[in-house]
Amino acid sequence: MKLENDLLLRTLKHEQVERPPIWLMRQAGRILPQYRALRGSLSGFKELVSTPQLAAEVTIQPIDELNVDAAIIFSDILVIPEAMGLDYEMVEKVGPSFPTTITSLQQVNKLESGAIAAERLEYVYEAVKATKKGLNNRVPLIGFSGAPWTLLAYMVEGGGSKTFSKAKKLLYQEPELSHQLLSKITDTIIAYLQNKIDAGVDVVQVFDSWAGLLSPAHYKIFALPYIEKIVASIKRVPVITFAKGAHHAIPEISEFETDAIGLDWTIDASVVKSYIGDRKILQGNLDPCLLYAKPEEIEQSTLDLVKKFESKHIVNLGHGVYPDTPLDGVKTFVNTIKNYSYTPS
Amino acid sequence: MKLENDLLLRTLKHEQVERPPIWLMRQAGRILPQYRALRGSLSGFKELVSTPQLAAEVTIQPIDELNVDAAIIFSDILVIPEAMGLDYEMVEKVGPSFPTTITSLQQVNKLESGAIAAERLEYVYEAVKATKKGLNNRVPLIGFSGAPWTLLAYMVEGGGSKTFSKAKKLLYQEPELSHQLLSKITDTIIAYLQNKIDAGVDVVQVFDSWAGLLSPAHYKIFALPYIEKIVASIKRVPVITFAKGAHHAIPEISEFETDAIGLDWTIDASVVKSYIGDRKILQGNLDPCLLYAKPEEIEQSTLDLVKKFESKHIVNLGHGVYPDTPLDGVKTFVNTIKNYSYTPS
Repeated sequence: MKLENDLLLRTLKHEQVERPPIWLMRQAGRILPQYRALRGSLSGFKELVSTPQLAAEVTIQPIDELNVDAAIIFSDILVIPEAMGLDYEMVEKVGPSFPTTITSLQQVNKLESGAIAAERLEYVYEAVKATKKGLNNRVPLIGFSGAPWTLLAYMVEGGGSKTFSKAKKLLYQEPELSHQLLSKITDTIIAYLQNKIDAGVDVVQVFDSWAGLLSPAHYKIFALPYIEKIVASIKRVPVITFAKGAHHAIPEISEFETDAIGLDWTIDASVVKSYIGDRKILQGNLDPCLLYAKPEEIEQSTLDLVKKFESKHIVNLGHGVYPDTPLDGVKTFVNTIKNYSYTPS
Repeated sequence: MKLENDLLLRTLKHEQVERPPIWLMRQAGRILPQYRALRGSLSGFKELVSTPQLAAEVTIQPIDELNVDAAIIFSDILVIPEAMGLDYEMVEKVGPSFPTTITSLQQVNKLESGAIAAERLEYVYEAVKATKKGLNNRVPLIGFSGAPWTLLAYMVEGGGSKTFSKAKKLLYQEPELSHQLLSKITDTIIAYLQNKIDAGVDVVQVFDSWAGLLSPAHYKIFALPYIEKIVASIKRVPVITFAKGAHHAIPEISEFETDAIGLDWTIDASVVKSYIGDRKILQGNLDPCLLYAKPEEIEQSTLDLVKKFESKHIVNLGHGVYPDTPLDGVKTFVNTIKNYSYTPS
């Protein structure tokens, strides 16, 4: 079925487009009053993630409310560790917490992985199907996964951390164990993303949220090879790779079979353009805090951004939108792009 | 008086040296059993900071225990906001907390600044004098300050934060107020560092700990001009500027009157060398988590590091040493450098 709005897909195919597509990381979430109303009626975040009809509902909310050019399935990167056998809780105002963390090879050996682990995430695939039905071909649907290093970081650290020094310590002290864990995570991600594509997602994004914590040397050893394997495994839909904070790794990521590269807001687009040229579509990269500014400044900075990228660009923030962002700021951002044209008449 | 070990000062003067000097950010602190013993006997962190004899004692501990090439005065970057009239508490296992935060121009106008604020930090200058006496010319003493953006961040946010989105919001919503606050902080830092130099510090380091949270555009507007002013004001001793996470700003910082530039561990030294050449001394930049590794790996990575920098280098981590770092790891790191020679016979 042809999509009514296929701007994102055409951009990812390097076609000439009339304007850049726009969506926001975390667009389905607390910025929307509809989300807060639904979320308030539920027992917790995980109920929302694991109930396909509810996940589909919140995935579609920003399409109705913001009129963005893509939906992204409402889910959590930590469903993968859970499917592998490592349960977690989502603690209100604290974040994820793993009662058991990975410290030994014995534990790694016991983890489920690959297709068998991915099978346990049927509720995500059902959510994808329900979302596709609800979207009714209005816009493409993005599926996603955390990247292996980021998932290892949570599985070893046990929750959020400023430094993730426990997880980084494992890389230094137990490199073999780390690689075995990363391999199992990678196999699971690959099976998971294939199932998501089977279920109907049109694009896939890989989030390496904690990429910025590793040294360039460790990122080359413990992160990039696994990301490369994942993006190479995805043949049927375009892939966006977002390694937040890993400014040093963009040249290497640009050699991967990824269609697009996400940029965080600390990176100057013109620097990346200078060595990537038009080889890859770039996504990003406004400071999420810009959306707190006055409408005129949001509009001006957004226009400056699209001019800087020129083309081959998916407009987004350089990080997930912050939960307390005013809805008006988000709408100004989106509408500035919807009213923009690469070829003004 | 001539220092017994003036390796750091000779390096900062671009003299040919036999090996690079080494010290660690946060070397005076929890990594040392002597520190933990003293700290355990006190009411809190602030008692240690505000009691000159105690601050001097812990400043000297790493010289005795680790034999590093410089001491850095034990203090806290938040003494400046406090001297300006904004009190804070140091909450055990949580971090700093400001009961009142800056939200209005009226509050900014009421803040003390410059020489008058700096006068209130007599206890720091006394600690510097006591340390100089205790060091007895063994090694140089580094004095430091937080950079204006980092101090504003705490004064507006009220404590640590993953995003400092409240502080960043102020920059977007109240740029004039932000500049007035940054100016007052800058004037205070300048007076404070002059007083520290009067009291005897041999080198000064400016820490912009939260530099990495700003976009390149905001960093140019709200951080760099103030840092430039501060480093230009320091004529009598060498200055090291460390803007953690601001990889994009290093070319601009290299145009300032700073003698050295600190690099965090996400930056490849050879990239920086490629555009700075020998114009500035570079400091850093091993991953703090390397010190959790086996001795052979610490040694090898440290040797790889000095070879990468070649010369004009102050060896350090790319961030403050983490409190749970094994003392043996720290010693291996330090001793590898103490036994190294630029010109092997």
